[in-house]
Amino acid sequence: MSRQSGRSSDPRKVSQELFTLTYGSLVSQLVKDYESDEEVNKQLDKMGYNIGIRLVEDFLARSGERRCNDFRETADIIAKSGFKMFLGITPTVSNWSAAGDEFSLILDNNPLTDFVELPEERSQLNYSNILCGVIRGALETVQMDVNVRFVQDILKGDNQTEIKVKFIKRLEDAVPAGEE
Amino acid sequence: MSRQSGRSSDPRKVSQELFTLTYGSLVSQLVKDYESDEEVNKQLDKMGYNIGIRLVEDFLARSGERRCNDFRETADIIAKSGFKMFLGITPTVSNWSAAGDEFSLILDNNPLTDFVELPEERSQLNYSNILCGVIRGALETVQMDVNVRFVQDILKGDNQTEIKVKFIKRLEDAVPAGEE
Repeated sequence: MSRQSGRSSDPRKVSQELFTLTYGSLVSQLVKDYESDEEVNKQLDKMGYNIGIRLVEDFLARSGERRCNDFRETADIIAKSGFKMFLGITPTVSNWSAAGDEFSLILDNNPLTDFVELPEERSQLNYSNILCGVIRGALETVQMDVNVRFVQDILKGDNQTEIKVKFIKRLEDAVPAGEE
Repeated sequence: MSRQSGRSSDPRKVSQELFTLTYGSLVSQLVKDYESDEEVNKQLDKMGYNIGIRLVEDFLARSGERRCNDFRETADIIAKSGFKMFLGITPTVSNWSAAGDEFSLILDNNPLTDFVELPEERSQLNYSNILCGVIRGALETVQMDVNVRFVQDILKGDNQTEIKVKFIKRLEDAVPAGEE
């Protein structure tokens, strides 16, 4: 099941509800398949990574965004352009580290969790962990090695949903991204 | 992971590409999990059923559609209203049986398969089988028992992608739909 080319720049859309329920089916299946929440989180991150490396090409073509000058610009583009284009939401960028190498994306509204309540025994599950993988995969494709993780989630009773993105290093241009 | 209420009638959208890739992750996971294509088809149909019984409520609220007078009207609403609202496409309704109890939905464009090529050893896989389940679940919720199946698929080298929907019987009003 490999990719085809030949798509236009037509920004076609599907209903968020259908997407949300389909994503729910995916998480449910992984929860059936893997013993631990940690393993499910890992799988979701991996799937997200593979999606991210594919989406980024489309994103660059459609958004017209160019190479970022710094990590602050990267953060803004992820939030205002990337999340907006693909999920229809715009997270807030905040909690910058003093060194400027880490920020948070605060999701006031997370379409992935619209119909979801986590059972108590799933307290370690990062239900939306695919998003971390997507960001990681997308940034790796533009030569940025980052660490991405959920640090708060309304699903778990936290006050807000927060993803932390930490810059690790710039990658060499010559390294092609491969599927994990 | 049960549903919540309180959604508005806001027809929010996400990118088709993100949906397509997420659906691809789901199918890949099922292909890993189950030996036979038939079992994967069955699982996709079941997931679709559970999605269909949830989508229909939203669909009725947003589309303003009422109970159909006959099966021809049902066919038109599925194609022009349902597929349009959730997937952004409008299949053609055709190939009516003489008895008027069976029709085909011809999908000129199937967003689920946008990046997909089936490997040869997966010749029995109905990659988009979730759609059959969605239609079945949605119609069951409005008291119609139907049989839904793929009879042609461009992914398999057929000339077109065709889903057949056959009316079986009208269900009693009192039967609540349950998750499979």
